[in-house]
Amino acid sequence: MREITLADLDDIATGAAVLGTGGGGDPHIGRLLAASAVREYGPVKLCSLEELPDDAALVQVAMMGAPTVMVEKLPSVDQVSAAAGALSGHLGSGLTHIACAEAGGVNSLIPVVAAAQLGLPLVDADGMGRAFPEIQMVLPTLYGVRATPMAIADEKGNRAVLDTVDNHWAERLARSATIDMGCSAMISSYAMSGAQARDSLVPGTLSLCAELGRLVREARAAHADPVAAVVARLGGSTLFTGKVTDVERRTVTGFARGTATLSGLDGDAGSALTLRFQNEYLVAEVDGRVRATVPDLICTLDRESGEAVTTEALRFGQRVTVIAAPADPRWHTPEGLALAGPRYFGYDLDPVGANG
Amino acid sequence: MREITLADLDDIATGAAVLGTGGGGDPHIGRLLAASAVREYGPVKLCSLEELPDDAALVQVAMMGAPTVMVEKLPSVDQVSAAAGALSGHLGSGLTHIACAEAGGVNSLIPVVAAAQLGLPLVDADGMGRAFPEIQMVLPTLYGVRATPMAIADEKGNRAVLDTVDNHWAERLARSATIDMGCSAMISSYAMSGAQARDSLVPGTLSLCAELGRLVREARAAHADPVAAVVARLGGSTLFTGKVTDVERRTVTGFARGTATLSGLDGDAGSALTLRFQNEYLVAEVDGRVRATVPDLICTLDRESGEAVTTEALRFGQRVTVIAAPADPRWHTPEGLALAGPRYFGYDLDPVGANG
Repeated sequence: MREITLADLDDIATGAAVLGTGGGGDPHIGRLLAASAVREYGPVKLCSLEELPDDAALVQVAMMGAPTVMVEKLPSVDQVSAAAGALSGHLGSGLTHIACAEAGGVNSLIPVVAAAQLGLPLVDADGMGRAFPEIQMVLPTLYGVRATPMAIADEKGNRAVLDTVDNHWAERLARSATIDMGCSAMISSYAMSGAQARDSLVPGTLSLCAELGRLVREARAAHADPVAAVVARLGGSTLFTGKVTDVERRTVTGFARGTATLSGLDGDAGSALTLRFQNEYLVAEVDGRVRATVPDLICTLDRESGEAVTTEALRFGQRVTVIAAPADPRWHTPEGLALAGPRYFGYDLDPVGANG
Repeated sequence: MREITLADLDDIATGAAVLGTGGGGDPHIGRLLAASAVREYGPVKLCSLEELPDDAALVQVAMMGAPTVMVEKLPSVDQVSAAAGALSGHLGSGLTHIACAEAGGVNSLIPVVAAAQLGLPLVDADGMGRAFPEIQMVLPTLYGVRATPMAIADEKGNRAVLDTVDNHWAERLARSATIDMGCSAMISSYAMSGAQARDSLVPGTLSLCAELGRLVREARAAHADPVAAVVARLGGSTLFTGKVTDVERRTVTGFARGTATLSGLDGDAGSALTLRFQNEYLVAEVDGRVRATVPDLICTLDRESGEAVTTEALRFGQRVTVIAAPADPRWHTPEGLALAGPRYFGYDLDPVGANG
């Protein structure tokens, strides 16, 4: 894939929602915004990490906030670019590329919107290889790349440029601003060079999203099993198939937190799965035994269509298959686990990998 | 007064604390910081509004947060200038003058610190003619001057530059950042020209502070009544003399809020005064009858020494005289009252003036 056209957006949205592990926002919203931008400004050039010049000037663009709110407060194309524009103005130098902070329904496609409107190529990579809820939770943090200067913008026209002593402080100040802005805002952060991007980003994310989307679409067309196709491509495993029997969620401190309970179907009949989430699915327990945790990916897919079900879209009665897939291995280092392991999220658990 | 020297700081701090109406921070802290800066960098030139060039480039410098916290977390001289430096960097043009946001123990002297360190003259004026708790509560707001771009800085090295759609949004975002920063931060805001300053600021504030301080000092030396000297100079009135019998205070959403009760002495024996405050004294009731409200100044002075007692320094058993004095008349316009009248602060009261 050398550029992203209108025809690619459905597959990318489908695949990004899988890697979003329940977070990263509603893929339908991301697709609508990206389609609107590509229709107006034309296709977006895609640039691999290998072909990125060392002195390229990248910034990440993302939506910050509670996915439960994003679905009610749709951003405009202009708002998406406002954060990147404010950051570029602060940096006082031109940007050459846009990058993705994370893989997720909205946050894989928001950068497409920014790249289209700003007329810049998009880097085929992201900072996580999945979605995570907080700003400092990107691999560039492990490489000493600073989240700030970062810009934050709301739909009313408010802007802030933050410059903090570390990436945790960037999260803290940006989170408060996001809450003030109505629990949903656009951010632009992690300005870095092409050389830094090549070291620290996860390569090929948008291509992988498009491929996952294509696999799901083709399996459906062939009356094959789309979930199995996803599991095979990601080198993961199937944890559980069941029906959603209970969802408890609350929006606290700008996050969508909660727990979902599933009762087993087919081979899992008689068992129960508990999913714990904070924007993303973080822990999966079958009959009280922890079967998978962050940093590995826990994805909930519609059993028939293979479409990912975000944490905010979980509903009583849905029949889903929960799968696990390995994260970028750098998330399993001591530094990676300190940043985004189960204990950081408040679970007193050792990490449990996707493949046991 | 053509410049502010070490010898002037005591009088300015005393007078500023009177105009601070209980807020604006501990005058002792302001004096310590200013003394340290003047000792290191030399006296600060004072510039009247009349002699300010039309094309002067001013910014206000102030401390934001709960005065109860300021006394525990003393800022450094460097931190004071950090906010002005960040704002100047954002504006991309040099500053020519520093101005005061408000009159108050800390916030009349913090600009002295900034002016000394940056080697800039200080404008003999302020944005309120008193102290108020929120950023938008300055006369420049009534003239359409924008609070933003504004910079905020903490003692750890975190910075933010805000650009908001109106001055209420500046307050909202800066308040959240201040709370994150530990309920006390340095801000720089209301960048304006000399012409705008002449229109919108209250003239002569630092001279008035110094004069009030001198009057109090001289009255004490002559065994005369310092409180009467302050009342006469401000054209105000004495509301009540009494002993503090109860103080209830809490730090909420970054403010020091509370109520104090005084039982009358001398001619007020048998009566009780209730003072309601939110950083500043806002409402004074004698025996249940409202005798004075914002926007006029309600000042609590030690009965013997004439020194102002800030809301955070109020203690059981203190013997004080509560006085009222007229605010700048622009605060009594409908627009001024909408910004800082009793109803804005949540009291369902018409404003009651200092002289009945």
